[in-house]
Amino acid sequence: MEKETIAGRRRRREPSMGPNAVTAVLLLSCPDQKGLVAGVADFIYRYGGNIIHADQHTDPEEGTFLQRVEWELNGFGVPRNEVGGEFEPIARRFDMSWSLQFSDHVARTAVFVSKQAHCMYDLLARQRMGELQTEIPLVVSNHETLGPVAESFGVEYAHLPVTRETKAEQEAKTLALLEERRVDLIVLARYMQIVSDDFVSRYPRRIINIHHSFLPAFAGARPYHQAHERGVKIIGATAHYVTAELDQGPIIEQDVVRVSHRDSVADLIRKGRDLEMVVLARAVDLHLRRRILVYGSKTVVFN
Amino acid sequence: MEKETIAGRRRRREPSMGPNAVTAVLLLSCPDQKGLVAGVADFIYRYGGNIIHADQHTDPEEGTFLQRVEWELNGFGVPRNEVGGEFEPIARRFDMSWSLQFSDHVARTAVFVSKQAHCMYDLLARQRMGELQTEIPLVVSNHETLGPVAESFGVEYAHLPVTRETKAEQEAKTLALLEERRVDLIVLARYMQIVSDDFVSRYPRRIINIHHSFLPAFAGARPYHQAHERGVKIIGATAHYVTAELDQGPIIEQDVVRVSHRDSVADLIRKGRDLEMVVLARAVDLHLRRRILVYGSKTVVFN
Amino acid sequence: MEKETIAGRRRRREPSMGPNAVTAVLLLSCPDQKGLVAGVADFIYRYGGNIIHADQHTDPEEGTFLQRVEWELNGFGVPRNEVGGEFEPIARRFDMSWSLQFSDHVARTAVFVSKQAHCMYDLLARQRMGELQTEIPLVVSNHETLGPVAESFGVEYAHLPVTRETKAEQEAKTLALLEERRVDLIVLARYMQIVSDDFVSRYPRRIINIHHSFLPAFAGARPYHQAHERGVKIIGATAHYVTAELDQGPIIEQDVVRVSHRDSVADLIRKGRDLEMVVLARAVDLHLRRRILVYGSKTVVFN
Amino acid sequence: MEKETIAGRRRRREPSMGPNAVTAVLLLSCPDQKGLVAGVADFIYRYGGNIIHADQHTDPEEGTFLQRVEWELNGFGVPRNEVGGEFEPIARRFDMSWSLQFSDHVARTAVFVSKQAHCMYDLLARQRMGELQTEIPLVVSNHETLGPVAESFGVEYAHLPVTRETKAEQEAKTLALLEERRVDLIVLARYMQIVSDDFVSRYPRRIINIHHSFLPAFAGARPYHQAHERGVKIIGATAHYVTAELDQGPIIEQDVVRVSHRDSVADLIRKGRDLEMVVLARAVDLHLRRRILVYGSKTVVFN
Repeated sequence: MEKETIAGRRRRREPSMGPNAVTAVLLLSCPDQKGLVAGVADFIYRYGGNIIHADQHTDPEEGTFLQRVEWELNGFGVPRNEVGGEFEPIARRFDMSWSLQFSDHVARTAVFVSKQAHCMYDLLARQRMGELQTEIPLVVSNHETLGPVAESFGVEYAHLPVTRETKAEQEAKTLALLEERRVDLIVLARYMQIVSDDFVSRYPRRIINIHHSFLPAFAGARPYHQAHERGVKIIGATAHYVTAELDQGPIIEQDVVRVSHRDSVADLIRKGRDLEMVVLARAVDLHLRRRILVYGSKTVVFN
Repeated sequence: MEKETIAGRRRRREPSMGPNAVTAVLLLSCPDQKGLVAGVADFIYRYGGNIIHADQHTDPEEGTFLQRVEWELNGFGVPRNEVGGEFEPIARRFDMSWSLQFSDHVARTAVFVSKQAHCMYDLLARQRMGELQTEIPLVVSNHETLGPVAESFGVEYAHLPVTRETKAEQEAKTLALLEERRVDLIVLARYMQIVSDDFVSRYPRRIINIHHSFLPAFAGARPYHQAHERGVKIIGATAHYVTAELDQGPIIEQDVVRVSHRDSVADLIRKGRDLEMVVLARAVDLHLRRRILVYGSKTVVFN
Repeated sequence: MEKETIAGRRRRREPSMGPNAVTAVLLLSCPDQKGLVAGVADFIYRYGGNIIHADQHTDPEEGTFLQRVEWELNGFGVPRNEVGGEFEPIARRFDMSWSLQFSDHVARTAVFVSKQAHCMYDLLARQRMGELQTEIPLVVSNHETLGPVAESFGVEYAHLPVTRETKAEQEAKTLALLEERRVDLIVLARYMQIVSDDFVSRYPRRIINIHHSFLPAFAGARPYHQAHERGVKIIGATAHYVTAELDQGPIIEQDVVRVSHRDSVADLIRKGRDLEMVVLARAVDLHLRRRILVYGSKTVVFN
Repeated sequence: MEKETIAGRRRRREPSMGPNAVTAVLLLSCPDQKGLVAGVADFIYRYGGNIIHADQHTDPEEGTFLQRVEWELNGFGVPRNEVGGEFEPIARRFDMSWSLQFSDHVARTAVFVSKQAHCMYDLLARQRMGELQTEIPLVVSNHETLGPVAESFGVEYAHLPVTRETKAEQEAKTLALLEERRVDLIVLARYMQIVSDDFVSRYPRRIINIHHSFLPAFAGARPYHQAHERGVKIIGATAHYVTAELDQGPIIEQDVVRVSHRDSVADLIRKGRDLEMVVLARAVDLHLRRRILVYGSKTVVFN
């Protein structure tokens, strides 16, 4: 208990920034070479930009340079719709892959579930509390079970059952719905279906899954049963981008919890639930705040 | 992702037990002496009881013995309403403090909040999913803010504002309401008011608070600000029973997360929220499953 | 800094016990059945024994009961060399596997190393400081490299090089030496050789290995390289008993540390070293204090 | 176990660098202002320097900018003894505090101990294995106890006993000895004496202490006893720079371990030892690798 001091939620924002300060976030990667940091910093400085976050990473084995830079648009000498165009020559000079986004952008997220509710509850509550800067217009499920939960949050619930025979058709329907609802990000929140390669290719690096083990240990089905069988002393959860290969996508975040012989499979499931919830929420938040760069089969997380 | 294999929530229960197997849970403490373990074990064995959990602890400094024993009522040769009476002579012989409860008991919990919603959302969702074996008939708050959240879960929301002048009166009203709703357990889920000694004395060892620091570090107000100021590399959260002394009650559970110079106060608040949520939920669950014995200013947690 | 208050090492011992109080430790497992706890507790109580530690575990799937009981010999009505004989009828009645050991027993440990010194330094220093209740009469290595380290601790260093062709012969020599030095426990402290099944069968559940990954992730060779390649966010180390199957033995202890994209393979190796050291030392200590029961492919660690 | 693949210790070094590649490390702080990153990056780029590590931090509350940049000297167009002079104008322009060091510098460290050996063993072993890039010419102690340990590592052991009356004199002797041995860094490795303000002022930000608690919890004497008394569920250790105020210096590194009611004070001491060892070693390594910037009462750790 304490005297009341914190007035509700605050936006994460530097104190020096005004209440509506919008920032530009540049994520880039390119072959490592001299002059990169100077080149980007000079671009922002030239137009009077105030950098509030800059972080870079060099992978010496791959010879790859990766960077995240964030600066205030306020006072920046280039209108926001021209920033990309102005940066283009620098990008070309260094052969960069890059993307630019503004901090007032609100992505649209669809949450996929089956019968387990904990990750769904957690994501919807976080969105509602303003912890996740996104809209969640849609929950997709292959079961009817969680419809009432979506309803209590006032979110559309699309029940799209699937069998081996109807899988292609169900995915087509799902994709159409996602497009209609203008979904940017898909979160598999304990969705117990394997999505097809074709589906994945439609949302590259925009599908986040939570796997209920410390990957690469216990990939595949029933990881808590596997963990119990093996007698491990620690279990984990892993959030990763979904790729064509099952449970092999770039890892975004992992966490673990200690267990012992006292823990039955049911206890592992219970302890694991909290991990899944928190690890998935962290990964989604990192994605939405543009903190992640994927390269090869790995991520760089600038946090 | 994985093929669907886990059918919804399972009750935590030993595989050998039938679906409705009720157990008796005995929590006891007494001066350490020879024959204690034999005495209790013999009592259960004599009537054909099947022990499914037994754990004990001896505090050699205090000379105190503490034990938790759980056994199946099914097949036990004493009717449930006579178990206490039958145990009484053993308790008297060893000078025990003890309590007995049956696993089908469903406690009634009131959640106290102010303006921050995360712990409240989490507790209500867990109750709804069946993770916490309790009913939550009531949310009490000194603000109107979270009324709609309670409503979306169909839970009564008592808005009982408080000022320095009206504190006594507000607590009286609150106590009356708690009695009316037959509340067994009070959870202060980021309730930003100090409850009076008198109030505490009405619910001894039945008020659980979450403090947003790793106690005893940063007791009192604004712990995240204090932590940021001090430059710690790890922050924590602490769930404890509320006693007359502020933030001094017996600690039930704690957890921590690593932070760095990159984390602003707002980041500490954000990271801390996840800790608060999980640590509080664990503490409430331990209480409800009768896993905690308080002695002196400490707890023994049998888990 | 603080004023000096702790006078050197203390033996881990209950305060009530005299300086030389010897205890008996009974480790047992048997089919689960009623009356077990009562039976053992009654045996100790009958002869006036004072239990200072008792812990048990029931595996409901296997129907197995496992227990560790420790009591003071002082005042116990059976001379130490007759305790086993007196317990025998109870063991037979419940069909127990059991072992009995006294706390003043000092096991003899051989440490096996290759070229990396950190675990060896750590174990020898702990032994020297009295943290590990064991003698270490012998270090075995397939390289000459660490001879001077052994020498600085005054420990015999057996350089027994091995090639594919000489493996059988080298193991025979090693076994002869272990026997001569009356070794009870073998610790593979980053020993980079696979020991043969035959060798393992000579020291069942008495060879402890440290594997430098969070098993079952990254079994086999070069786990840090594998971890770096996969882009995991956490790495680990695993201490386990050695069995015929490589990296598949019962896990005793594990721990993990967070890593990021900033960590090169060399950084993983560096961070991992600390894990290996600490995890291995904990496992050896648990073994020496008779805290571990192996059953099937798992351990129960009573701590 | 695994086939032997890692050939001894490796220097932590980028793969692209030759075996003897020397780098320059620049640590700087100054008032936050536009053009800083560009200014420093441009300086290095102008002379053809290859940046292999760059990290910066802005404290928006203090308006302070802090940076660490590391680049290869090989191919850099300024001779090493002129780098500072060339950088001077930029430093002046931005009003920087800064320091420059080359990666082949080997600092000289003195280890201070009392009677407990674990941190001393660990530091000496790490130095010997090449894990810490430093020489350790001297161990200072107020007791004779650990002389043989120093001797076994071939390190000078200065026994300088101290009483309330002789403290000033002892410190004077110690300072003289430190100067004679050209010591750059002092590590208080469970040295149970409070060093005077005057002493501290002679080695500002060059004395590292390990405190055996999770500061600011349990500052002062007997932290494990305090922790046990309070019934915390997690204990910690803290490495910090020593300042005039006891246990209040800038925190470098902390870590924690879970404990329970089962742990006696002796168990806390035992578990804490491993924390102390590892946390202190990490802090010393960070210092030696020039990863730490102190500002105000806090550190920025670039790792």
